Amino acid sequence: MTPPDVAVTEVADPLAEAAPTMELLLRELDRRWPREAERLHQISRYALLPAGKLLRPLLLMESAEAVGGGGPAVVPAALSVEYLHVGSLVHDDVIDGDTMRRGRPSVAARYGTTDAIVTGDALMLGMFGALTDGAEDTGLLTEDAGLLTEDAGLLTEDAGLLTEDAGGLPPGRVLGAVRVFARAGVDLCRGQAMEGELRGDLGCGLDRYLTMSALKTGALFRAACRGGAILGGGSPAQQHALTSYAEHLGLAFQMHDDLLPYTSDSRTTGKSALSDIAAARPTFPVLLCHAMAGAPARVRLEAALGGALPAADALRTVHELLETTGALTAARDRATAQADRAKSCLESLPRSRATAVLAAVADLSVSRDR
Amino acid sequence: MTPPDVAVTEVADPLAEAAPTMELLLRELDRRWPREAERLHQISRYALLPAGKLLRPLLLMESAEAVGGGGPAVVPAALSVEYLHVGSLVHDDVIDGDTMRRGRPSVAARYGTTDAIVTGDALMLGMFGALTDGAEDTGLLTEDAGLLTEDAGLLTEDAGLLTEDAGGLPPGRVLGAVRVFARAGVDLCRGQAMEGELRGDLGCGLDRYLTMSALKTGALFRAACRGGAILGGGSPAQQHALTSYAEHLGLAFQMHDDLLPYTSDSRTTGKSALSDIAAARPTFPVLLCHAMAGAPARVRLEAALGGALPAADALRTVHELLETTGALTAARDRATAQADRAKSCLESLPRSRATAVLAAVADLSVSRDR
Repeated sequence: MTPPDVAVTEVADPLAEAAPTMELLLRELDRRWPREAERLHQISRYALLPAGKLLRPLLLMESAEAVGGGGPAVVPAALSVEYLHVGSLVHDDVIDGDTMRRGRPSVAARYGTTDAIVTGDALMLGMFGALTDGAEDTGLLTEDAGLLTEDAGLLTEDAGLLTEDAGGLPPGRVLGAVRVFARAGVDLCRGQAMEGELRGDLGCGLDRYLTMSALKTGALFRAACRGGAILGGGSPAQQHALTSYAEHLGLAFQMHDDLLPYTSDSRTTGKSALSDIAAARPTFPVLLCHAMAGAPARVRLEAALGGALPAADALRTVHELLETTGALTAARDRATAQADRAKSCLESLPRSRATAVLAAVADLSVSRDR
Repeated sequence: MTPPDVAVTEVADPLAEAAPTMELLLRELDRRWPREAERLHQISRYALLPAGKLLRPLLLMESAEAVGGGGPAVVPAALSVEYLHVGSLVHDDVIDGDTMRRGRPSVAARYGTTDAIVTGDALMLGMFGALTDGAEDTGLLTEDAGLLTEDAGLLTEDAGLLTEDAGGLPPGRVLGAVRVFARAGVDLCRGQAMEGELRGDLGCGLDRYLTMSALKTGALFRAACRGGAILGGGSPAQQHALTSYAEHLGLAFQMHDDLLPYTSDSRTTGKSALSDIAAARPTFPVLLCHAMAGAPARVRLEAALGGALPAADALRTVHELLETTGALTAARDRATAQADRAKSCLESLPRSRATAVLAAVADLSVSRDR
């Protein structure tokens, strides 16, 4: 029994504890997507590597370990969350016309719209192959890509049916993860569709914004943590705890993300403070400001975000209103509260290195400057 | 034991035998995608209904039945092949800028590029949810789409983990189908990428064209038949037989599709005879002509397809060369030979209503005029 007054983060440097997991993920990602491959595979590699933060795969690995599973058997599943994430980003860049991603040309800019759409599709579809392949996964399932001749026989493959296990994982668990990932993928799409509907609508209200965030950003956190809990063999109560952790973490993450343009300089975040304003994207602090402000401030805010002012003036006005209404402070507080609630969800799990890492991720979600 | 001289198609009207299955599929498709739903769901319904031929779902149903399974338990899996097919068509229309599909505006034309990309993604990802949900499937997994409040609790769902079965199907079989579908989805993308590479390349050769067809068109036939064989509990030999059937059927289908502009008028096929030429798409009869023709005819063919002639003149020249070189006849013969080989793959299966339907589909693949 863990005494309730002992913090779950008592490991000296929890994020350093995650380093071996991160190294394993990076090594496997590189190995599964070799440089020498057909074009679609090469473009996929370009999208996946050099890797981003690999936060979602890390969450899956640590969630599985937190319930007594984890290790190499869940690596393919962990990477498959990244395939869904990156596939979705590749499509996002097509939709938004973004030419840069992670400091270099986006897939759409480098290879064109057609290849970007097809590569995103392949990553999203291939993830389910990776997931079912378990430890035997080889990326885009290219292992028997024999050229079909007139004989039509070479594409025939008989060794593929999984009957008993996927890389040592029971099929019922893997199937549960498939279901959770499919659901997350659809939720992500629902969030994207909803984001489009909210664009330019300052009056959409915080509730709809939070639903959109839970769908668009929360879905993959949820898939990672719940998927990890299922694959790791967690009890229903443990699955529930990690799912709730993921939902609060997702909100904290998105709230903090929305705050970054106002709290961090654009060279660090890689984002222009103006981009959310230019895209008429309602963000968390702005919606909070809209809800908290009196009528005069609300009119000024709407004018600033309505395209009536030059961009630099608009930003200055928004920033000033966020400060004077107290919205900036309130937004920070609410992001921190979500991170704290995420951590509190971990208290029902056995204390371990993994729960310490998960708690540290929650802290990081509201303290990072990028 | 079936006497070898008894044709598998001795059922009086095999396609009429498929009518109840088609009705079941249509009824379930309509039920699972209600009119009253959120936007993304509505757009998905627009893409799915009115339904096309539902050929791939039919193949899955009949393949399952051919090995002793089938029935309502595999309906969600059958529909999920259609989700992948339609999701891919929605993206195709974005890529090709096509404004019409099945005689009405394409999703891209009606709802715009952004919604078309997101809807295609949702269909492709949702198919795996439908597949794992078995008989309990409800389309886009929207059943617990509670609005997330500040409390972040309403998205929590605990009833989702499949442990023992999916709609009565053993998890090992469903997982096998997940794997086959994921593989098919990636193959489809590989075929699309390859199609882009072959565009305008008359010298690409028949082998590369056939590989592209096997990937782009064959993948979903293969997924449907192999997936059905797995879900129906077929033996490895039966899975192999139905997979080979699907590969030959896919080739016959694509070869015949390429012939349609030259054998059927454009009002029936819904395609302009000029569209393949305008898109510089190497097609089966044209590649065969290129391979069969002497040097002078080859030069004329290259000129006609190189954009040097007015479109109507180009078409007339191509048509004439297809006739004089014998390529049109040869292409027809080879399509028919593939359909015959497809049927011969069925001979190792117990003769049944389902095998008769599958044989009739093979016949239809090279006799249809649309």
